[in-house]
Order: sequence, then C-alpha cells, then structure tokens
Amino acid sequence: MQRYKAIISYDGTGFLGYQVQPKGRTVQAELEAALEKIHKGIPVKVTASGRTDAGVHAKGQVIHFDSPLAIPEDRWVVALNSLLPEDLAVLFVEKADNAFHARFDAAGKEYRYQLQLSGFRDPFQRNYVYRYPYALNLEAMREASRYLLGTHDFTSFCAAKTEVQDKVRTIKEIDFLLDGDLLTIRFVGTGFLYNMVRILVGTLLAVGSGDLSPEEIPSILEKKDRSAAGKTAPARGLYLWEVFY
Amino acid sequence: MQRYKAIISYDGTGFLGYQVQPKGRTVQAELEAALEKIHKGIPVKVTASGRTDAGVHAKGQVIHFDSPLAIPEDRWVVALNSLLPEDLAVLFVEKADNAFHARFDAAGKEYRYQLQLSGFRDPFQRNYVYRYPYALNLEAMREASRYLLGTHDFTSFCAAKTEVQDKVRTIKEIDFLLDGDLLTIRFVGTGFLYNMVRILVGTLLAVGSGDLSPEEIPSILEKKDRSAAGKTAPARGLYLWEVFY
Repeated sequence: MQRYKAIISYDGTGFLGYQVQPKGRTVQAELEAALEKIHKGIPVKVTASGRTDAGVHAKGQVIHFDSPLAIPEDRWVVALNSLLPEDLAVLFVEKADNAFHARFDAAGKEYRYQLQLSGFRDPFQRNYVYRYPYALNLEAMREASRYLLGTHDFTSFCAAKTEVQDKVRTIKEIDFLLDGDLLTIRFVGTGFLYNMVRILVGTLLAVGSGDLSPEEIPSILEKKDRSAAGKTAPARGLYLWEVFY
Repeated sequence: MQRYKAIISYDGTGFLGYQVQPKGRTVQAELEAALEKIHKGIPVKVTASGRTDAGVHAKGQVIHFDSPLAIPEDRWVVALNSLLPEDLAVLFVEKADNAFHARFDAAGKEYRYQLQLSGFRDPFQRNYVYRYPYALNLEAMREASRYLLGTHDFTSFCAAKTEVQDKVRTIKEIDFLLDGDLLTIRFVGTGFLYNMVRILVGTLLAVGSGDLSPEEIPSILEKKDRSAAGKTAPARGLYLWEVFY
C-alpha cells in the first residue's frame, strides 16, 4: 500500500460540507466514490486535514488516502479529475510516508474571509463573498485583531455544540487587505475550532460597526461563553486557503 | 403609464435562457413574477434587447416595461432586487420615453467570450470560462478576425434553425485581451444572430489551432452554410456585456 497526499479545491456552494453525511452531497463522498471506481469497487477511505461546513470553500484542502495501485503522481490527478464533478478538483498528488496523516500532522492552517463592502448586487459573486454594505472602522478592527493574536482559550469563539475538549489555539496572523470594495481577512493559526473563523469575523464586524470596542476582546475571551462574541458570519465568504505541515 | 428602461445582470448557469419557456427557469419569467408582485397580481410584460441562451451570462442586458406606479427610479432597483433570486440583479432603472423599445432601438451590442488557456481545473470558474488548454496561434486569430470585421451576410455563423431572414450584420470591433491564462475576445457589432458569437469563437479557435487558415474566412462567409464554419463554443464563456442605444 502506498499513502498519497493530495491538495484539493472545491466550491462549497453545492456541498453539505466536507464530511460524509447520511443524506446529501459531500466532498468526502465524491472523493471516495471516484477512488472506489478507480479501485474497481473496493472502498477507499479519504482523510482530510479537517472538515469544512456547508457552503464553505476550499482553495487548498489536504487529504490522504492509501492505494495498492502503482499509478504515477500526475496520473492520479488526471484520473481523479476525470471522475469528479466540476465543483471539486484535485490540484496535486504526491507520494507520502505511510506515517503521514492529513489531520494529525497539520501544523497550521490559513483561512481567508471575503467581504464585499458595497451594496452592488453582483450575481457572479453571490456564493463567494459576504455583502456587507455598512460603514466599518477598519482601524478598530485591526486593533481588535491584535488582542486575538497569540495563544488563548477560544471557547467564546467556538460553536456551543462542539465536542472538542481542548479549546486552546494559537492565532499567528490576522491581516486585512482592502482591494476596491473587497475586504479580505486572512487568518493563520495552529488550528481552528468549529465555526471559529466565522465567529471571529462576526466579532470583528461588531467592532468595525461600533457595537463592540477593541478593548472588550480580552473580556470576551475570558468569559469562555459563545454568547459573549459576535454573530457567526455566513459560510459563503469563507475559504480554507492552505494547510501547513 | 410610464415606460422604464432597466439594466440587468445575471449568471446564466441556472437559467434555461432569457426567454419564457413552457418549462424551466428563465430570466424573463423571474422578472415578470417580481413585477407582478409589485403590481399586486397584475401581469407586467418585460421586453429585452434580445434573448440569451441557456448558460449564457449577462453583465449589461437591457429591458423595458410599463407601469402605472409612481415609484422613484432608485426605489425600483431596491424593490425588484428584494424579490429577485440572487443570480439575477437589477443594476439600474430610469424613466424612458414611451416610444423607447429595448429591442428595436438597440443600435449595437458588446459580447465578451472568456477562455482559460491552461489546464488548471478551477472549481470557482467552471461556469464562467471555457477551458481550452491547447496551443493557440493568437496572431492567426487576429488576422482571421480582420476578415470578419465590417458588413457581411453571416449565414455561415448562425445556428441553422434560426427563423430570421436578414442575416446581414456589421461587426465593428473584435479585440483579443490576454491576461495571464485568461483570453477575452470582445465583439462589438450592430447585432448578432442566434449563436453567432459562439460560432465566431469556435471558428477563431479552429484558426488558432491550425485547422483553418485566416485566408479561408472570406470563403466561409461566401458559402452561407453553417457547416463551413467552426464549432459552437460552449455557452458558459459568453457574456452579453453591454447594449448601445
């Protein structure tokens, strides 16, 4: 058996999320169906760096799988893409050590969140940005982001229903990039809890619109209570951009 | 009654085309349903500058409709968009002379066709560009385009099933814009026949790939036979960009 590492990209719009569900279309199920065809009906399990939710996109999700087939790396890309739907693409495949694990070995991740700060209703962007045509104090958002950097218990920034016990994570970078009316917020960290980036964005928007002050961030973290933070921003603006090993 | 002129944009992916059909989702039907709601159940007819096919996009389609309601121009935009699906947007509404006709008064149109010249499979572009990862001689395509400029009978570049009698049209501009691996071909003309831009693109691609020489264009025009020209390029790369009055 050879372990393979692959980088994949998907438009999350048409998926119920990454992980296989009893009902509905998922990224994992599409990948496993394609691999099963290549393996003439033998099921192949796919493991990702982590789940993404319904509507969340990926530019650089990483997966691993094992196969007994001696297929060259670049032919895996062609073979898988020929079987996958057009909203899901394999960008790169390489042989990996049999000890490699897409989830446990992930040292960090980059997420990006895209906001459109004008009211312009663009049918071509409807699934890819969160339209937020309200005044934002970017300087206050930058200030708030500095309180979020570093190692914290992010319980307040995690969906209440999560099962994970350890909610301590480290955020290494939060950048704001304004290009015309498009604001991209970049998050780099060791790992992110369920809905964490979307709650971070919702909280930064609350700061930008004056509902919260940057100085309230430390007490929100201390409260360890989801209801202390801002709203969960919509899935459509969120991209899993890169996974670091 | 007041006549209104409106500029609309739509992602053609989810539509069976512009014009109302017995079955399936169309742009016209969505617009007329929204107007009927605003007019409390009274049907309002919408007339466009012309049809677009299933999967063809519009950045600046123009329509007109009549209404007895005294709604300010910018409020029409808000009212219609609040009722329209997210893949269809009204960008602009203005009062028009009662003699204005979106189709008969159109003096010209601009279409753009977007090709991706690399094999990179981008899930986010699947409905918006035609992926064409083959060698293209752009200089030969430019040369061929010069034979297409001006006033010609474009029977060879029109879907055979069309009912229009007069197939003489004038193409004023054909431009090629290469940005990275994205090639945009811009067509400006007095009007375009059914499938004409897509057949022009298919024929230019045949020239670019060496299957036709630029010098064969005049004889293709003279033959007045659809089978003399190239293939019909896919709808997903085509955008009705602007209508001129």
